[in-house]
Amino acid sequence: MNRIPFEELKMMLSGVLVRLGFAQERAERCAQLFAETTRDGVYTHGVARFPRFVAMIRNGSVDVHAEPVLKTRLGAVERWDGCRGPGNLNAEFCMERAIALGRVQGVGCVALGNTNHWMRGGTYGWQAAEARLIGMCWTNTMPNMPPWGGLDPVLGNNPLVIGVPRAKRPVVLDTAMSQFSYGALEGYRTRGEQLPVPGGFDGEGELTRDPAAIEKSQRVLPAGYWKGSGISIVLDMMGAMLGLGLATHQLGNDPLRETGISQVFLAVDPAAFGSADERERIADAIVSSVERCTPAEAGRRVRCPGERTLRAREENTRLGLPVDAELWKQILGM
Amino acid sequence: MNRIPFEELKMMLSGVLVRLGFAQERAERCAQLFAETTRDGVYTHGVARFPRFVAMIRNGSVDVHAEPVLKTRLGAVERWDGCRGPGNLNAEFCMERAIALGRVQGVGCVALGNTNHWMRGGTYGWQAAEARLIGMCWTNTMPNMPPWGGLDPVLGNNPLVIGVPRAKRPVVLDTAMSQFSYGALEGYRTRGEQLPVPGGFDGEGELTRDPAAIEKSQRVLPAGYWKGSGISIVLDMMGAMLGLGLATHQLGNDPLRETGISQVFLAVDPAAFGSADERERIADAIVSSVERCTPAEAGRRVRCPGERTLRAREENTRLGLPVDAELWKQILGM
Repeated sequence: MNRIPFEELKMMLSGVLVRLGFAQERAERCAQLFAETTRDGVYTHGVARFPRFVAMIRNGSVDVHAEPVLKTRLGAVERWDGCRGPGNLNAEFCMERAIALGRVQGVGCVALGNTNHWMRGGTYGWQAAEARLIGMCWTNTMPNMPPWGGLDPVLGNNPLVIGVPRAKRPVVLDTAMSQFSYGALEGYRTRGEQLPVPGGFDGEGELTRDPAAIEKSQRVLPAGYWKGSGISIVLDMMGAMLGLGLATHQLGNDPLRETGISQVFLAVDPAAFGSADERERIADAIVSSVERCTPAEAGRRVRCPGERTLRAREENTRLGLPVDAELWKQILGM
Repeated sequence: MNRIPFEELKMMLSGVLVRLGFAQERAERCAQLFAETTRDGVYTHGVARFPRFVAMIRNGSVDVHAEPVLKTRLGAVERWDGCRGPGNLNAEFCMERAIALGRVQGVGCVALGNTNHWMRGGTYGWQAAEARLIGMCWTNTMPNMPPWGGLDPVLGNNPLVIGVPRAKRPVVLDTAMSQFSYGALEGYRTRGEQLPVPGGFDGEGELTRDPAAIEKSQRVLPAGYWKGSGISIVLDMMGAMLGLGLATHQLGNDPLRETGISQVFLAVDPAAFGSADERERIADAIVSSVERCTPAEAGRRVRCPGERTLRAREENTRLGLPVDAELWKQILGM
């Protein structure tokens, strides 16, 4: 494991992107988002994803030159065509549009079709919350999860992101609709660990905590069984109906060809609802009420979503960003 | 179990409400919403809840005369004070306002504070979807669920509702953030059944499918463990920050005094995003892709959220609404 300073990692990724045809400024922004994700401790979706991103540029799934094109605009909503450009740049752009609409109208809703994987969804929740707006966004994905009561992986794990601003630090939820990602399963298996709770079905159709059995059956569990299954369905419907991009069932099952997806970005400006002072007090009191809860295990604490992010950010900024040695070698050779 | 015709049930409830001081028209609308909930098969939140609703009128928690008062309005958002009026009338009113804003602005967001339990949340998802808009709404509740990693019930089970319009029938999700409600636990216990999946912790802190053990420990499980826990927190924050009503931690633990709560209603008009024809095709194709999934148990089908509602609606309209004999006697005596 190497520890790479933030700026060095960003520069390195940016250089690779320029060589792949990105304009300088867009390369730097795209690299920044990858580096920030690793800095914030979301290792599965940061620099570890970079080789896959590069592969999707090389196979034509991601068009490095494409920028979003406005398709419709009315009142507080807009629809953009992502033109299969870089997913993180497209998503950041659309949340920025939602924030701009939200500042004027109190709420903004931007739908994006024909785009690519947005990498870490939480990025866009933080973006809204740091701008002092509530951000809510979701994406569909390729099919990778059976619905509750079904065998075939016809649903996406369609992450939902909600960022809530606070004077101290935002509360940012970033949650896929599967109980565990395939990346998480692989992590547990590699470490020789069982999952902390059942994460899918084994070959006999029984719920299991054995990651290898789930990887084999390909039957990951929707979070909350029928609940995550139902939420996944409506997120896909809203994404494809508003963004007019592809729906999960149209996305095939090759991760390197997962392109043309649909996303929705909502931003709500709490200032439009009055009483700014009261709001800070309300938000802080809710967070305190949760953090005061007696922990189930001695020595641990109950946390609100996003707290770990700031801890990882501080540590990784101080020590350098942890990058797998093999991965680093690979990037240096790109 | 009695089978009561819809109109008879509605008239009977309406009569009780008029005797409690409701204006005639509001009594009929309120009774209609209770009867529709039972008709649609959501038995826990229909007429079975009526005695509790009446008790909350009698103890002053619900003000039968109160109507929502506009507090702020800007662009596509509004905030209303529910003035502790009947929760279902307040919620229906606010979703109607969100729909009206959504028709003009593409999206409308209405926050409601100081209101009462909305009974069946799905009602407002159906309301938006039947108006051909996407509806999304949520409420906070009194504290009734420990957060993931915690022992004390500091979170509400804060239901999230999403209704998506379709030419055929809407897809309507109505899902609390606990894996099972206390009503559901009671049902399983009474029938002498174990839960189909773990629903909480027993006295030893182990996950269990025994409903009685969970009722005793009062440690119901958030849906998806840390996932439902996190969603519950951000729903409460958004509700209280936008609606400026009470937050979960301020709501005490007496179900008969659960008043002053906070709700948010979002309505998005798909027509504002263009291509109406394409949208119907998109929605139908997604539903079909889910329904075509191979069932995990032979003879069963994979369903989209809301399908069972229409089946119950048809059957109960035909046969009469099922009302527990004791409950019916109680209502006749009110």
